[in-house]
Amino acid sequence: MSGLRGRLVVGQSGGITAVMNASLQGVIEEASLHPEIEAVYGARCGIEGLLKEDFIDLSPQGQRRLAGVGRMPGAALGSCRHKLSDADVERALSVMRAHNIRYFLYIGGNDSADTTHRLSLAARAAGHELRAIAIPKTIDNDLPCTDHCPGYGSAARFIALAAGYSGMDSRSMASAYQVKVMEVMGRNAGWLAAASALARRRSGPAAPHIICVPERPFHADRFLSEVKDAYRSEGYVLVVAGETLRDAAGHPVGQLPDSALTDAFGHPRLAGVAVALTRLVEQELGLITRWERPGTLQRSFAACVSKVDRSEAYEVGRAAIRYALAGETDQMVTLVREDGPAYRCRTGLAPISAIANRERLLPAEYFENDGSFVTEVFLSYVRPLIGPPLPSLSGIRDAWVGRLLEQGR
Amino acid sequence: MSGLRGRLVVGQSGGITAVMNASLQGVIEEASLHPEIEAVYGARCGIEGLLKEDFIDLSPQGQRRLAGVGRMPGAALGSCRHKLSDADVERALSVMRAHNIRYFLYIGGNDSADTTHRLSLAARAAGHELRAIAIPKTIDNDLPCTDHCPGYGSAARFIALAAGYSGMDSRSMASAYQVKVMEVMGRNAGWLAAASALARRRSGPAAPHIICVPERPFHADRFLSEVKDAYRSEGYVLVVAGETLRDAAGHPVGQLPDSALTDAFGHPRLAGVAVALTRLVEQELGLITRWERPGTLQRSFAACVSKVDRSEAYEVGRAAIRYALAGETDQMVTLVREDGPAYRCRTGLAPISAIANRERLLPAEYFENDGSFVTEVFLSYVRPLIGPPLPSLSGIRDAWVGRLLEQGR
Repeated sequence: MSGLRGRLVVGQSGGITAVMNASLQGVIEEASLHPEIEAVYGARCGIEGLLKEDFIDLSPQGQRRLAGVGRMPGAALGSCRHKLSDADVERALSVMRAHNIRYFLYIGGNDSADTTHRLSLAARAAGHELRAIAIPKTIDNDLPCTDHCPGYGSAARFIALAAGYSGMDSRSMASAYQVKVMEVMGRNAGWLAAASALARRRSGPAAPHIICVPERPFHADRFLSEVKDAYRSEGYVLVVAGETLRDAAGHPVGQLPDSALTDAFGHPRLAGVAVALTRLVEQELGLITRWERPGTLQRSFAACVSKVDRSEAYEVGRAAIRYALAGETDQMVTLVREDGPAYRCRTGLAPISAIANRERLLPAEYFENDGSFVTEVFLSYVRPLIGPPLPSLSGIRDAWVGRLLEQGR
Repeated sequence: MSGLRGRLVVGQSGGITAVMNASLQGVIEEASLHPEIEAVYGARCGIEGLLKEDFIDLSPQGQRRLAGVGRMPGAALGSCRHKLSDADVERALSVMRAHNIRYFLYIGGNDSADTTHRLSLAARAAGHELRAIAIPKTIDNDLPCTDHCPGYGSAARFIALAAGYSGMDSRSMASAYQVKVMEVMGRNAGWLAAASALARRRSGPAAPHIICVPERPFHADRFLSEVKDAYRSEGYVLVVAGETLRDAAGHPVGQLPDSALTDAFGHPRLAGVAVALTRLVEQELGLITRWERPGTLQRSFAACVSKVDRSEAYEVGRAAIRYALAGETDQMVTLVREDGPAYRCRTGLAPISAIANRERLLPAEYFENDGSFVTEVFLSYVRPLIGPPLPSLSGIRDAWVGRLLEQGR
């Protein structure tokens, strides 16, 4: 099966990450080592570029420029959210035939895996030999069959740093505001919100105090009572909340009335969890609140990437080429965590049909049954993914001075 | 006037910064060199701690712990927003007499300078010799009489990084959303929003495209036409907007109906500029939008502080002690930029009466007359404050491949 000669197209799709260009770099560098791959084309804006023949020749980029691109956040080729129509599939086949494209590598999440899968099936049915490999990428970490997804570690590191620093702000300003909600990405999965737990230290700040994940139905009464308890014991509360919380009836929390739009894949565009939770706290508990929404900084803030994550993103890109040359198709590259005391991952493969359009949510053992925090099992899972340990958050030693006056005030 | 023996109280007040603990470190370290200062007390939560005699003895903290505290964001002593009543002033005098407090150093912004000023006047009137010095600190950069304020450089660096990365996200995702608004702090001044301009490079990303500052009345029509123009020429738009925009009649833009609260100083608590602007764009231009609000990360994200800023924050803390020992009182330490090709600042002094409750807004020559961007004069002003140059944002070289099929689609 190996030795198939032809051109390669690589594309990037879906929400970006801070390290998905490292995967692109891995693809280009590894491809340059194999003469069967006669050219490496980059499809502008993912599958949209393939359909329009918007191709960039990636072979003559030069090693230094390529290394620079590999450190940039975002999709250097441009990304897209495009649901393939049947006509699109036909057109894609024509384009691949015309350019003798025999390798299709797609860096993306669930929706992109579906695109790869459909092109692979169509090419097989049409007798156009094609090696189609999905390269995983998503800060949501919601792809099945892989220990984790490249992009998640860096977003998790950013959120853990953000929760730590934002918690220092809350603690410092407890006499000005008492409750803060940080709204975190993650579509239907709480992986990223859960990673904020890394900010809490054994000795030191207890923030975040409450983590609300979409896997757990939101109950206003329970939430308010948790906020009240945390405020009573700490004097300030940091809540980290997934952007897509739902109540027990399945209704989104904090959806703004005029934003009930859906994107090209039918996923609802939500807004307002942080606004909704802070209003609830102000109205029911009378505490002063703040909220923040780091938004796309979660997936793009390259100043704080996880080195482990970047290196793994690069390796899955290289592995995709090797698997394709070995004759694999309709597969996604996975990360397989090896047993042992030290963290190590190798690459593996899983059939895309087991991945496309499926979501891996936080398993039950990663989140407290009674409470709003993650378990030690989850912390052991996530800790190695964010790279070096987080900076310490030390404070002043409380050497109190005796009072000399009456405290009648 | 020098040689006044007694205890020193240092406090922190107002919105925190990422480097105000470096000023605290400077105060403690410098004070330890002068035997006239018999003890260094930290007031818990600023003036509130002074009123309640909530003092921590800062002398025995140890050099290593102190260096760690100096690198933490936030107020290690706790901050407050407390408007002094007349009774408070009397109480403060009693406390200072009881503890023989002869030095009062207050790390804060305009409101804190006012507190320092009033204590100074009251002590003089009561015949209690007191050296009261304000140490500037605010990410808003809105204190008069100083070239800039410690804290601003680090927040400016964070926002410049954030705008650069967020712009990479927008450019990558232009086929999924077209316009993004990042909401930035700054009370009535646009210094921080303006700093996002540093993200725009001569060659490379043009984001941010539009900067809305509170100094310039917001006109919806002009804004929409600027968004349309930027979208036409770039294919995506990043808007950076101050959180307190007002229209020509002085009405706040995007104030949520139920958040018309005011803080202890009567400043309105605003929310919703980003929400308001994105809704306007969706409704009037039909473009898909996103928005984000980094919130307190702007003042606390210590992973990206400006080294220049941290070092200056430390130095104004040390200078405050030296000025107080030299007999100064009712003054604020300032930063004076020296002439010359290389950036250099020294410390100076300005009477607090010229500072308290006054705001320094962006001067006219720092912002384009016709347009929504800063001038080169502003960029020269702000560039040295954020520390080392920002990381480059390189991209792929556009080596287009020729099309082979008809583009009927």
